[in-house]
Amino acid sequence: MARRIVAFQGERGAFSESAALQLVGKSCRPLPCATFEELFESVENRKADLGIAPIENSLIGSIHINYDLLLKHKLTVVGETQLRVVHCLIARPGTTMRKIKQVYSHPAALSQCRKFLRKHQSFEEISYYDTAGSVKMLAESEISDGAAIASPYSAELYKMSLLKESIEDEKGNFTRFLLLSRKAKRFKGKAKTSLVFSLKNDPGALFKALSVFALRDIDLARIESRPMRSKKWEYYFYIDFLGSTEEKRVQNALSHLSEIASFTRVLGCYPHTVLG
Amino acid sequence: MARRIVAFQGERGAFSESAALQLVGKSCRPLPCATFEELFESVENRKADLGIAPIENSLIGSIHINYDLLLKHKLTVVGETQLRVVHCLIARPGTTMRKIKQVYSHPAALSQCRKFLRKHQSFEEISYYDTAGSVKMLAESEISDGAAIASPYSAELYKMSLLKESIEDEKGNFTRFLLLSRKAKRFKGKAKTSLVFSLKNDPGALFKALSVFALRDIDLARIESRPMRSKKWEYYFYIDFLGSTEEKRVQNALSHLSEIASFTRVLGCYPHTVLG
Repeated sequence: MARRIVAFQGERGAFSESAALQLVGKSCRPLPCATFEELFESVENRKADLGIAPIENSLIGSIHINYDLLLKHKLTVVGETQLRVVHCLIARPGTTMRKIKQVYSHPAALSQCRKFLRKHQSFEEISYYDTAGSVKMLAESEISDGAAIASPYSAELYKMSLLKESIEDEKGNFTRFLLLSRKAKRFKGKAKTSLVFSLKNDPGALFKALSVFALRDIDLARIESRPMRSKKWEYYFYIDFLGSTEEKRVQNALSHLSEIASFTRVLGCYPHTVLG
Repeated sequence: MARRIVAFQGERGAFSESAALQLVGKSCRPLPCATFEELFESVENRKADLGIAPIENSLIGSIHINYDLLLKHKLTVVGETQLRVVHCLIARPGTTMRKIKQVYSHPAALSQCRKFLRKHQSFEEISYYDTAGSVKMLAESEISDGAAIASPYSAELYKMSLLKESIEDEKGNFTRFLLLSRKAKRFKGKAKTSLVFSLKNDPGALFKALSVFALRDIDLARIESRPMRSKKWEYYFYIDFLGSTEEKRVQNALSHLSEIASFTRVLGCYPHTVLG
């Protein structure tokens, strides 16, 4: 079987790539994309078989651009996984802690390692466009007094020294990822379904929409709203619920929802692995 | 009566300041703050009487940091307003369109004027930390071939030339602002109430929480969820509903909600002016 190509946003060694390896297996071929838009397009245009996109983080919340792109593109969610965000101090082999003068990383990663950086006040922080990209830059350079902050996998990939593991402030920093495909995939076991809908402007419309699930004992795992750019102060609602679109009660709920909603679209039905 | 001091984030002339003038009146004294955190603290520490914070935008969605700060700080929402985001090309008096070589603004504002900037490809775009700040910088400089993109009010404030009004791509770009105070304010007329709650981890808990409003014909205008940093994949829910905490049916709903929620807090009850 040909190795499946998985598109992700970022440089080789990004957290998204680790999530892809975890979900699709180590034999997949990662395809780095500059933007999330490019990631979705790569799958749509058959440059990649699958795509992996972060959808929410346990500290910062939803990654809204990917909610908007799920609606814009016609891909199907076929899986989910979560990854703990572990930041490491990474340098060229031979560089020791004492030698380090500059630390390169994405500003978000630098801000997530505040305590560590406060302990090492002699390190100058330098913003870089990407975490794994800063490891790649050092690997291709001859900088012997610089280090990067990035994933443990990026150290392995670029054959760099892992000087210190898990330097992030918060150990409970998890990101949930969705696996995207052009077509749905059959599977057995517990299912989760993701769906987006918009409502007619009636009183109690959101309550009625959620009631179609509650009345059938279908559990909601998540609700997110995003503005409808075309209508001021109206929203698209994104819902994850526990259940499969092959179940009769779910089919009934969706049919009931279409009586209330002005638009509905199932984004995918996939194995339920991340506990909400 | 002493002029009321209103804290806002940004430089003098920011969109938030226009929202403050609109909501509090032209006699208020604006207090610029470097960050949203500083804005909330200024009101809490009595440096300001009131604060004004953007909470959602009709194109980009919620301004999440301000949801998180509403929970972190003990302020009360006492008002709301909306403002259309109008971007203008502003320069020093004497600068004409033909003279312009550089355009300074916040990257978000530059990206919201794509069509205009594409028509003027000779303009070099220069990112600046703040929209009104770029007008201030030009006003204090002797730059005769530069322009800024910012609000019409910032041109007036810094006595600059308004070369072109309304150069934004999307005319339907609105921001909703909340007015914050240390204590609630009495008012007559239609009310909106903002509230935050978290749920016990029971099946159907969100549906039950929303039912306390629906069962009493209380209309929801908005729902937003934010991660509970302390508990993975659990959320705080923020709700706006139409009704006053002085109404018996609202008091009953809140008492009913406390049976279902593990935590509830009313963030404020204020005149309902922005239609949801």
